[in-house]
Parts: sequence; structure tokens; C-alpha cells
Amino acid sequence: MRRTHFTEMNCSVAQTLEIVGEWWTLLIVRDALFGVTRFDDFQNRLGIARNILTLRLETLVDHGVMVKDQYQDKPIRYDYRLTKRGKDLWMVIAAMRQWGDIWLADGGPPLEFVHRTCGCSMTIQPVCSACAHVVDRESLSSIPGPGASREDLPPGPSR
Amino acid sequence: MRRTHFTEMNCSVAQTLEIVGEWWTLLIVRDALFGVTRFDDFQNRLGIARNILTLRLETLVDHGVMVKDQYQDKPIRYDYRLTKRGKDLWMVIAAMRQWGDIWLADGGPPLEFVHRTCGCSMTIQPVCSACAHVVDRESLSSIPGPGASREDLPPGPSR
Repeated sequence: MRRTHFTEMNCSVAQTLEIVGEWWTLLIVRDALFGVTRFDDFQNRLGIARNILTLRLETLVDHGVMVKDQYQDKPIRYDYRLTKRGKDLWMVIAAMRQWGDIWLADGGPPLEFVHRTCGCSMTIQPVCSACAHVVDRESLSSIPGPGASREDLPPGPSR
Repeated sequence: MRRTHFTEMNCSVAQTLEIVGEWWTLLIVRDALFGVTRFDDFQNRLGIARNILTLRLETLVDHGVMVKDQYQDKPIRYDYRLTKRGKDLWMVIAAMRQWGDIWLADGGPPLEFVHRTCGCSMTIQPVCSACAHVVDRESLSSIPGPGASREDLPPGPSR
């Protein structure tokens, strides 16, 4: 019931959550972005039940977020690596991390990021792709896009 | 078991997922960002079971993401509004939307965003808060932050 409903929503947020909305899934992607590829390494780092991890990895492979390569015959073992589509999730993870750093990390951010080009410890700032100025929520309005359907448009003042 | 484990992870991504990692939660926040405040409006838009919606809204209130205000006596009815903390989730939603627009929206983005300041249809570009240049995943390295604990550091080359 629930999954069907998500798939039917004509909204890119809902479609994305359909694939990565389960807690473990995004933590698997987080660790994959840090270079983890092996089943046992994911399992050890996350403390996730093996059957759940198997299911989540298969879902990610099915949706083209990861690919798996066999690296051992007996027993059969696979490496799991992010595809371009998967690596592109870094912004979602980064946005979550920054929100958690600001609002939940009482002892300060567990991790900081350094921009290699300038060498500085930094956060990600969102700018407009058209004018390059920093944007915030209040400076954006939404309008129907090419994939819009009438019943899925947002209500209210932001529309 | 699972929840306990999440809370114990010293990682801002995991802490954030602890609050907003459930599918419906982020769609509730999405709609709240569009101006939805009433229980029945959330329920109608999302098609979510009333008892689940009640639980999710209470979780968001408990974690300071939303506040509720009584607007009617008989029967008692509440408005739910995002706090500063809640509004600040817009970047997480925006990052998910952009990923879905690129990788999942076969008919094109259902919604587009206009930057009011410049009047252009736009996407959000991530730039470095220090040098203002556009960043991508490859240009960032992670280092231990003030809240780091040894066992929670990421492995591998990105560290």
C-alpha cells in the first residue's frame, strides 16, 4: 500500500525517498562515499543485520545506485560500488550532515570538510545556478515544471 | 535495537536520519515548507493513515522541528508549523528533489524553482563557504571535527 502510493506521487522528493528513504540505505551510501565496498565492512561499520543489509544493497543495485562485482569464488563475495547516479547522492548526504551538525551535534561536528582547492575547512553554501548569488528558502518560488500534473502541484503561497 | 544503534552513532547524518529518516516525515516537512499547516490537509495531500500521521507529527514536535498551536476548541484542532530548525531542512529536501529530477523524472521535473532576486529558473549549486568556488564530491576531504570520537571516523581514502 505505502510503496504503491509513493511511486504514484508525481514529485521528485517522493520518488527519491522511494529509493533512499529507508534509514539504512542512506548510511550505506554514506559509507560507500567514504570508500567502503565490501559486505562485511558495511556490516561491521553499521551493525546492521546481514539479511537487512543484503536487501538494502540489492535495492540499491536494482535502482542503479550501486553495481556489484564478484571478487571471490569460494565462497562467492561481491564488491559494491556507487555508480554515477549513486555518487551524485553526495549532496543529499552533505545537506543532512550540515543540518545535523548545526542542530543536533552538541559536541560540535564529528567530521569537518576541507575544500582541497583552497585548503580551507568549509561548509556547502547553496547558490543560484543562474546568478551565482547565495539563495535561501525565502528567495525561491516554485512553478510547474515540464513533468507537472495538475493534482500534484503544491498548495499555498509558495506555489 | 535499530533506533538505539542510530542514536549511538557519532555522525550527523545518522543523527539527522534518526529524526527525519522515515519516508513520511520528510514528505510532511516538504508540504509544510509549501505552507500546509492543518492535520486534514497533510492527510489529504499525502494519503497517509491518520494514526501514522499523528505519530510523525508528534515526533517532529518532540524534536523541535515543528510546533503545534490549537486553533479550535470543539473538537480540538491544531496547526502544525515549522520552527527555524524545521525550515532549515529545506536544503535536504532541495538536494533530494534535484537528485530525483535528474535521475528519476522521465517526464522532466514536476516542479521548477525560480530565484526571485534574478527572476531565473534555476537549480541549487553547491559552493565552498570559504572561497565561493563550485564544489563537487571529489574536491572535498573529511577530517575529524571537534565532536569526533576515534571509533566513528570514516575509513579509506576520503578520510
